Amino acid sequence: MALKKVSKKKVAQPRKTAGTSSSIKVALLGFGTVGSAVARVLSARKFSGIELTHIFNRNAERKRTSPAARSVPDSVLWTESIEEILRSDVDIVIELMGGLNPVEGWLRKALTSGKSVVTANKQLIAYRGAKLARIAAQHNVQLVYGAAVAGGVPVIPGMLQGLCGDQITRLSGIVNGTCNFILSRMESGAAYATVLADAQHAGYAEADPSADVDGYDARAKLCILSRIALHAELDPDTVPTQSISTVEAIDFAYAKELSCTIRQVSQAELDGRTVHARVGPMLVPLSSPIAWSHGTQNMVVATGRFGGDTVFSGHGAGGDPTAVAVVSDLLAVAQRCATVQLPVRKRKVTSDFLAPHYLRFVVDDKPGIVSAISGALAKVGANIDSILQRPGHPKHRLPFVVTTEPCLTSTIEQALRSIARMDCILEPPLCLQMLTVDDKADDVEAVKEE
Amino acid sequence: MALKKVSKKKVAQPRKTAGTSSSIKVALLGFGTVGSAVARVLSARKFSGIELTHIFNRNAERKRTSPAARSVPDSVLWTESIEEILRSDVDIVIELMGGLNPVEGWLRKALTSGKSVVTANKQLIAYRGAKLARIAAQHNVQLVYGAAVAGGVPVIPGMLQGLCGDQITRLSGIVNGTCNFILSRMESGAAYATVLADAQHAGYAEADPSADVDGYDARAKLCILSRIALHAELDPDTVPTQSISTVEAIDFAYAKELSCTIRQVSQAELDGRTVHARVGPMLVPLSSPIAWSHGTQNMVVATGRFGGDTVFSGHGAGGDPTAVAVVSDLLAVAQRCATVQLPVRKRKVTSDFLAPHYLRFVVDDKPGIVSAISGALAKVGANIDSILQRPGHPKHRLPFVVTTEPCLTSTIEQALRSIARMDCILEPPLCLQMLTVDDKADDVEAVKEE
Repeated sequence: MALKKVSKKKVAQPRKTAGTSSSIKVALLGFGTVGSAVARVLSARKFSGIELTHIFNRNAERKRTSPAARSVPDSVLWTESIEEILRSDVDIVIELMGGLNPVEGWLRKALTSGKSVVTANKQLIAYRGAKLARIAAQHNVQLVYGAAVAGGVPVIPGMLQGLCGDQITRLSGIVNGTCNFILSRMESGAAYATVLADAQHAGYAEADPSADVDGYDARAKLCILSRIALHAELDPDTVPTQSISTVEAIDFAYAKELSCTIRQVSQAELDGRTVHARVGPMLVPLSSPIAWSHGTQNMVVATGRFGGDTVFSGHGAGGDPTAVAVVSDLLAVAQRCATVQLPVRKRKVTSDFLAPHYLRFVVDDKPGIVSAISGALAKVGANIDSILQRPGHPKHRLPFVVTTEPCLTSTIEQALRSIARMDCILEPPLCLQMLTVDDKADDVEAVKEE
Repeated sequence: MALKKVSKKKVAQPRKTAGTSSSIKVALLGFGTVGSAVARVLSARKFSGIELTHIFNRNAERKRTSPAARSVPDSVLWTESIEEILRSDVDIVIELMGGLNPVEGWLRKALTSGKSVVTANKQLIAYRGAKLARIAAQHNVQLVYGAAVAGGVPVIPGMLQGLCGDQITRLSGIVNGTCNFILSRMESGAAYATVLADAQHAGYAEADPSADVDGYDARAKLCILSRIALHAELDPDTVPTQSISTVEAIDFAYAKELSCTIRQVSQAELDGRTVHARVGPMLVPLSSPIAWSHGTQNMVVATGRFGGDTVFSGHGAGGDPTAVAVVSDLLAVAQRCATVQLPVRKRKVTSDFLAPHYLRFVVDDKPGIVSAISGALAKVGANIDSILQRPGHPKHRLPFVVTTEPCLTSTIEQALRSIARMDCILEPPLCLQMLTVDDKADDVEAVKEE
């Protein structure tokens, strides 16, 4: 006997089970850059059966009369009262406010009152996604968040729908455009502080840039991706982060000698019941897709047991690209398109990666330093792969670099603690993981099958 | 009143409406490289509620006892009779035979008898996809074909689900791994005939390589992508193709001088009620994502009105990657996951692209040739952008290159017809379109929103 599938024709039309009109009613929480872009896309695309009916924002009247509101239909009710939205007959709530509080409470109420939720809120989904998904399931509504990671790049739907047949074992991604912008600029020779100041002055990095440069934004996204692709639920607070703020121009020069560049990489790798996870600046081989990413582009590489490396790349942020992800989610909910669901399990995080490491020391040069440092590394069993010392630096403040063969992060950190105590060491050593490329899918067989 | 959505918990379990067991029963048509990989992935992943029950193949007994069948459960019924499959209580038929006949008739029967179909058959879907989708809808079953384009790269689900909110206006892709392999090798200096012979000797290009090198394989895939992304139904036979077989090593040398490489590109661009479409070797700027693709990798770039360029890349072919796409589709059908449906319209194809063109002439050099050729181009209104002549070639057989500013393909072809008649022209001129990069999404705004 065959599967009874709802007819495509019926699926193609958004449906209402009850209500005064035949349209799906939509409320927008937040009318900032993304919110106004969502209104603009909806107005331009004119999807039949979807009606924007409410917009919630502080200073609703000021927003309503702003140029950004030009594409909002006159029929829309602008409100500063969340209760008005929650009490309404809206079918789908689009949340673009961000943060945990008070949004979490609002969305719980929306879900329990039978409204589906589309959100781009990465912190909320990273910390409370599993709980909110359970509430949604209990109330026969949907919670979707394709816009929470990589903006307009369809990483979440692509992995949920297109890679669910594989067993994804590793994720590597560039999911924070601000860091990628800063590091791309530094690659061309600029200093960190200068680029950051420029970015802040132009208004596209926050006055307090910590969420971006220290990795907390990327960490939330990595945890969401781990749930989707590795079927692993991680506690975001247990994923170690490393700031990009200690990377200097000299590190890009050394990276280039190693045929690498430096990017803020978010990485998670399944290893039995644990997940190796980390966010921070890493050396990336120029031959890796991760190194292709410039400016504010986002990129995620999923490595599957069967399918090898799959790359998703594009505009990870910005009003219009993020609105594409939001509106795509909205259409999916309106047309009742579920994605494949596979069991997700809570997993412990380990910060240890077996990888080559890049160590940059700044020393007051005197005889015996290389011997002392290499001795400390030998003591923990870390093999040196290369020693690099570029000319042109003063002997009393000499940056030089050691790269190691693959060894555990914890092993390297142990050696660095003893090295940091040496008199000749002028500042805390910089330790960056070096990303390795090992896509195993076989090219010869790949051609055969074409 | 809220949308009534089937509970997630229920959606998560494949369901049967009737039958002797609670599992979804699956038949495999074709047990070649991809078919055996599908069996291997199913065996390794052990998805609950999905049971492989039938395998159809000629010489079923030989297949059954082959090493490739090791991962096939003993309970599977091997058969050489398609009728046995069609009469059975199988819920989902996975078709991996390829070609239009007799497969089209079999799948029609499967759909009309209430079986959903998962297929990787690009020719069938390009030529008969719309018709088969209507039959599927009439019988409340699903027809999915995520594996028909770019193998394991989730281009189809990613665009269907993640970019449906955008308005995709342009597709550029590398969707034939064999051509990409040949052109990548030629980039390193090898001659076309040598690389093709090597590939044939190694068994990964066909004895008759026409479907790949002449672009018919890529054309079918481009038509499928046009339906998915541009919502435009094209007649594959109206999409012009150009063979890669006339590209020579010298063209890569000239391309390099122009900061380009050469790839077989499949391109479709929406222009009101027509679609500019073409498959053939093109000059690709090294700065374009299309140029990143090496070896047998596939890559598709979708350009959206709102989201800018989105890139999908990975292993476009091969048993295991293609099996990932097939099994992902299988899970989607088993869990009744529909994708967003938007209206698709029949569109006329035009082969005209407004683009810069690369023209390579082989001439018996004498005074006045450049003047004659540039005169012929001027006559049709095509402006010359550059003239390149590399040293080291005999004057009596001199290759030289002219690039034009953007002009219509038809204009260039008109000029080439008159140039080809000149006495000094020793072989038909090679005319390649030059791909331009114009991703309009704004980086500054992108960072702001991060």
